[in-house]
Amino acid sequence: MERIPILRMGSYLLVTIQIDMQDQTALRLQEDLAASIEQNTARGVLIDVSALEMVDSFIGRMFIGISDIARILGAATVVVGIRPAVAITLVELGLPLSGVRTALNVERGMALLDKAQRGELR
Amino acid sequence: MERIPILRMGSYLLVTIQIDMQDQTALRLQEDLAASIEQNTARGVLIDVSALEMVDSFIGRMFIGISDIARILGAATVVVGIRPAVAITLVELGLPLSGVRTALNVERGMALLDKAQRGELR
Repeated sequence: MERIPILRMGSYLLVTIQIDMQDQTALRLQEDLAASIEQNTARGVLIDVSALEMVDSFIGRMFIGISDIARILGAATVVVGIRPAVAITLVELGLPLSGVRTALNVERGMALLDKAQRGELR
Repeated sequence: MERIPILRMGSYLLVTIQIDMQDQTALRLQEDLAASIEQNTARGVLIDVSALEMVDSFIGRMFIGISDIARILGAATVVVGIRPAVAITLVELGLPLSGVRTALNVERGMALLDKAQRGELR
């Protein structure tokens, strides 16, 4: 089973999703991330999906799941690099990612995490 | 097929809707806007509808869709210039545009986008 690496950057964790995930891989990622947030007392999770050209409802719900799990563990999540076509698909699937913070690229995502950490975002 | 122009103003995009859009035109606008947000790393989208005297549920839902897509791509959306009669129609159609920011005119819409960019709005 493929396993997606989780990189530590200071108090943030970076996940770069480069493959179209199977369900098992996605569930494993959720578990690994939850464990990693605890181990590293991480404050934020940055999920880069710029390599993904498609997304289905399973992946969309996974973003929401990861975001909820991270929040419960005290970390903010930002999904970055969503392509325009993927954004349209998500909305068409009825998954507008309402509870998930998003940003155009990694740089802006980091800025958003910094803001969240300073308590400037809810 | 008609195509609605998207103007760049600094880090914002301005769309002026002057025709009663056919469905295809509206879908094309969604795609063009999504691509344009990415290309210009836009922070906000201003949709001026002051020229529209009527609106149907398709257009109402399109505002919501554009707003969701833009948010996923990290940009705030403000719909400005909704006429009183159009506002009444939207509510009667059961589309109170709850998730969509609106303002009376372009000036106020810009101020709202500035606020959103400073993180004063969610």
